[in-house]
Amino acid sequence: MFEGPLAELIEALQRLPGVGPKSAQRIAFYLLKSPPSAAEGLAEAILNARRRMGFCRVCFNLAEGEVCRICQDPRRDPRTLCVVEEPKDTLVLEKAGFKGRYHVLGGVISPMDGIGPEDLRIKELLARVEGGEVEEVILATNPNLEGEATALYLARVIRPLGVKVTRLASGLPVGADLEYADELTLGRALEGRREL
Amino acid sequence: MFEGPLAELIEALQRLPGVGPKSAQRIAFYLLKSPPSAAEGLAEAILNARRRMGFCRVCFNLAEGEVCRICQDPRRDPRTLCVVEEPKDTLVLEKAGFKGRYHVLGGVISPMDGIGPEDLRIKELLARVEGGEVEEVILATNPNLEGEATALYLARVIRPLGVKVTRLASGLPVGADLEYADELTLGRALEGRREL
Repeated sequence: MFEGPLAELIEALQRLPGVGPKSAQRIAFYLLKSPPSAAEGLAEAILNARRRMGFCRVCFNLAEGEVCRICQDPRRDPRTLCVVEEPKDTLVLEKAGFKGRYHVLGGVISPMDGIGPEDLRIKELLARVEGGEVEEVILATNPNLEGEATALYLARVIRPLGVKVTRLASGLPVGADLEYADELTLGRALEGRREL
Repeated sequence: MFEGPLAELIEALQRLPGVGPKSAQRIAFYLLKSPPSAAEGLAEAILNARRRMGFCRVCFNLAEGEVCRICQDPRRDPRTLCVVEEPKDTLVLEKAGFKGRYHVLGGVISPMDGIGPEDLRIKELLARVEGGEVEEVILATNPNLEGEATALYLARVIRPLGVKVTRLASGLPVGADLEYADELTLGRALEGRREL
């Protein structure tokens, strides 16, 4: 239905997360209609990001240079290390006001997908903890099956190093309605209840 | 918050239609996580589409070569010419089963935006109609203020050439609920009522 290069562009756009056939068409037509600089700028930005962004050699978050900005920032507390699955997980923690440092695993342990501990940055995490500065490791993997299993595994291997290991609290989201809470979440909220 | 090239990529993505800050972040992280070929393929597809797609010199729809596929297709009826605002408008008409040819204006008359008839492909439309093959011109500009005004203008300049000029019907969308129809649409539906 579409001529070659347009069809190929729509197909490439459709592979992006959250972009369906309709939005892909809309974006493709936009790119063909806007001044050439818009399309070229986007292509350039994509290539540039791929070329210039790598992984921080300390925490494995995305970084432009060898070491990311957070690891370079002397105001960030090196005693608290927050372990996350993916670089994007740091975003919401930054917004929540976390002031320590991160360690990005690069995934979760998932036997179904053939991903074991050795495929993640766990060796590097243990080395950082052994380095001596870290006093607390916050396990902030996702509260789902793989995330929980990974957190349990990490707790087991980190605890012998003599640092405090904590997990993000599970419970009711702020502003939520008890009536609509799922049983699992409510169960966790009950377990984790605190004295007022 | 993001390092240079990543921030620039997110910004470039955010300019696309229908892509908000959240989706831009999600797409950027996806492009950095997926194999380099995915990002490069997308950048290439964008540049390729810009480089290789131009306008059909007959109907001004998007085309890879000099003349688009529809204008080249001998099975398409040259007697019925459907006038649309933008290339993307032909998509839905194709889906609706239109079998004639198109003429893409490249916009609508809009004094507010300083767009007059001379800024659109109207001269070329009149030349096609004067060519003699066309028997009916269907004005399929959008049913809004500018679209209607453009259709009225076109009807006035085409009619003297002795061809039939029609407009897409306005009325209730199929499957719509009378209760929720707006007055204007319902007014049009009443005006355009047909005997059964």
